[in-house]
Amino acid sequence: MAFSEYRPLNEKSLIEYIKAEPSLSSKLGNSLDDIKIKEVGDGNLNFVFIVVGPAGSCVIKQALPYVRCIGESWPMTKERAYFEALALREHGRLSPEHVPEVYHFDHAMSLIGMRYLEPPHIILRKGLTAGIEYPLLAEHMSEYMARTLYFTSLLYRSTTEHKRAVAECCGNVELCRLTEQVVFSDPYKVSQYNHWTSPYLDRDAEAVRQDNALKLEVAELKSKFCERAQALIHGDLHTGSVMVTHESTQVIDPEFAFYGPMGFDIGAFLGNLILAFFAQDGHADQVNDRKTYKEWILRTIEETWNLFHKKFIALWDEHKDGSGEAYLPAIYNNPRRIVGVAHVEDFNQSRMLANEQIVSSRLLK
Amino acid sequence: MAFSEYRPLNEKSLIEYIKAEPSLSSKLGNSLDDIKIKEVGDGNLNFVFIVVGPAGSCVIKQALPYVRCIGESWPMTKERAYFEALALREHGRLSPEHVPEVYHFDHAMSLIGMRYLEPPHIILRKGLTAGIEYPLLAEHMSEYMARTLYFTSLLYRSTTEHKRAVAECCGNVELCRLTEQVVFSDPYKVSQYNHWTSPYLDRDAEAVRQDNALKLEVAELKSKFCERAQALIHGDLHTGSVMVTHESTQVIDPEFAFYGPMGFDIGAFLGNLILAFFAQDGHADQVNDRKTYKEWILRTIEETWNLFHKKFIALWDEHKDGSGEAYLPAIYNNPRRIVGVAHVEDFNQSRMLANEQIVSSRLLK
Ligand SMILES: Nc1ncnc2c1ncn2[C@@H]1O[C@H](COP(=O)(O)OP(=O)(O)O)[C@@H](O)[C@H]1O
Ligand SMILES: Nc1ncnc2c1ncn2[C@@H]1O[C@H](COP(=O)(O)OP(=O)(O)O)[C@@H](O)[C@H]1O
Ligand SMILES: [Mg+2]
Ligand SMILES: [Mg+2]
Ligand SMILES: [Mg+2]
Ligand SMILES: [Mg+2]
Ligand SMILES: [Mg+2]
Repeated sequence: MAFSEYRPLNEKSLIEYIKAEPSLSSKLGNSLDDIKIKEVGDGNLNFVFIVVGPAGSCVIKQALPYVRCIGESWPMTKERAYFEALALREHGRLSPEHVPEVYHFDHAMSLIGMRYLEPPHIILRKGLTAGIEYPLLAEHMSEYMARTLYFTSLLYRSTTEHKRAVAECCGNVELCRLTEQVVFSDPYKVSQYNHWTSPYLDRDAEAVRQDNALKLEVAELKSKFCERAQALIHGDLHTGSVMVTHESTQVIDPEFAFYGPMGFDIGAFLGNLILAFFAQDGHADQVNDRKTYKEWILRTIEETWNLFHKKFIALWDEHKDGSGEAYLPAIYNNPRRIVGVAHVEDFNQSRMLANEQIVSSRLLK
Repeated sequence: MAFSEYRPLNEKSLIEYIKAEPSLSSKLGNSLDDIKIKEVGDGNLNFVFIVVGPAGSCVIKQALPYVRCIGESWPMTKERAYFEALALREHGRLSPEHVPEVYHFDHAMSLIGMRYLEPPHIILRKGLTAGIEYPLLAEHMSEYMARTLYFTSLLYRSTTEHKRAVAECCGNVELCRLTEQVVFSDPYKVSQYNHWTSPYLDRDAEAVRQDNALKLEVAELKSKFCERAQALIHGDLHTGSVMVTHESTQVIDPEFAFYGPMGFDIGAFLGNLILAFFAQDGHADQVNDRKTYKEWILRTIEETWNLFHKKFIALWDEHKDGSGEAYLPAIYNNPRRIVGVAHVEDFNQSRMLANEQIVSSRLLK
């Protein structure tokens, strides 16, 4: 076949590629004449092409063997596309309304074909900057997190299924290492990849580097991140990995997916909302002081957590006699109480991770 | 080759097998005429043959595709021999004085050839029943645990090495499931495999089944056992997995090895010493009231923990600028303090596991 070996595509070779792939050309209604292709990879890592024709559309995402925003000097395995496709499919199966459908995956090419999230979908981070309220955001994100995390955990699965899946996802170690570095290590030391608003935040950055109590907490969290295979987490669930309209919420870009602590996803999302809250003062002007909007963000944070908690426990209740092996119902016959305690610990972890995300996002551009 | 497919060996076919294996026959000085073979598998799972000739000796351990002490009605993968060989080699590399050397491993046959721990080596559990003091036990076991656990953890290793090893050991899931069942589940419910001294302990067994606070603790520990890939643990470190003389301490039988919480090994060993302590009154007679011996056991428990703690931290100090990624020295520049906190948590976990072992060992024969 023409594309049996890896090569990075461009607007032109992409058309040839789509022509040769029925699973993709069928999505464009097999009419590839008036097709428009636009590379929109505003992300840090990969190429993303939007492909729109008169009879259909799709998005093609291809991984490169390095970190795009840094360049070839920072190599990064293109195998990440495999784990992104795996997570899109698994999370999509569990929460189909909030994950774009995967049409096609080409391992050799590190290439994913998926549903085009057509306008007015925009990246949530941009919507938050623009001051737009999304009334269903908390409902949707809590649904997505509760279902993807519950059903890939040992509360639902047998250890046989779990260990098989954990072993496979150990393969995504390079991406895990990137998180270990940029989230759990670099912010707490002098590193060439740290950026902050200098000189205004110089003292804050220095204070973080000197804060032994904080570093101790973070060391504990880093260990959990590296060691605790709790559920198939997204691994990069900031507000730049969510696309939204008033009616729709779609989670993209799970290339950092692996079996890790649930709190890492929950904390990343809530932490990014907290960051968005603090950023509002910078967007305020005479027409809009953003006061009402800040209240909406706070409400959304609270509702996301409360709904997540409610939905997660409802799933647990619903499946309590199932194959999940972490808490056998025949033994642990007091589920409410257990849930109560488990909840407190998860919440602490989420809260710490939220704090942690604030610190690191403030230091990392 | 004659033995390229699995078949269980007996005293006779074993001789043929050894003849065909230079790595084994050389250990017997290549003189296989006056050889004596004795099957001594007093264990629950496998066949163990002691092979002694005029010019040398070895032990051959072969896994069967079921649980030996139950019979073919409880199938159990013979792949466990692979993980036993892996752990014997890895732990042997790290603590060569306390692990018998592996001479030979045959994957297809699920067969390990290793050093014969010649008399006066006996199983520690028997020595404890006989009331024999082992003055070097705490020193040796703390050394073994500190080195095997430290060097296979993220305090020493990079996450790249760690995740590769974790993934491989996920394959030992059937043995992990056996522990999950007999240590973390069965003792807390009515199960056909539970045994206790009836009717004397009937009320104790019932009390365990009703103790919600205990079951909640155990649920938390079970989650850690299933999820936390902290170090390559032995997985079955009771006093029946240790062979001793006055001068020598040897750890055998790591077929349950996988990446799990360090506390599981430490707690299993200390918990079994506590059990031995309580069992002494049953062995007391008019000649020996076992009082001094009970004090020796208590001292050994304390010393094992204190020496483990000291040695583990010494290893950490020694390698603090190495490749270990859990606590980067450049960041967490206050190691003493971190160690202090980490220690408290590990200790709690060990203590809980020790308690837990007592409960389950009391209920499981
Ligand atoms: N399925 C999609 N539909 C529409 N736009 C998309 C889709 N996937 C990605 N994009 C656009 O491409 C950008 C980069 O995609 P992303 O998956 O986040 O790549 P990266 O891994 O490089 O960050 C997104 O911010 C979004 O604007
Ligand atoms: N290397 C050895 N040297 C001497 N005796 C051994 C050796 N390995 C095992 N044994 C004897 O065989 C018994 C069973 O071995 P073990 O490895 O514990 O098997 P199992 O996995 O079936 O419990 C031990 O209790 C011990 O008496
Ligand atoms: Mg992205
Ligand atoms: Mg990405
Ligand atoms: Mg044994
Ligand atoms: Mg055994
Ligand atoms: Mg804890």
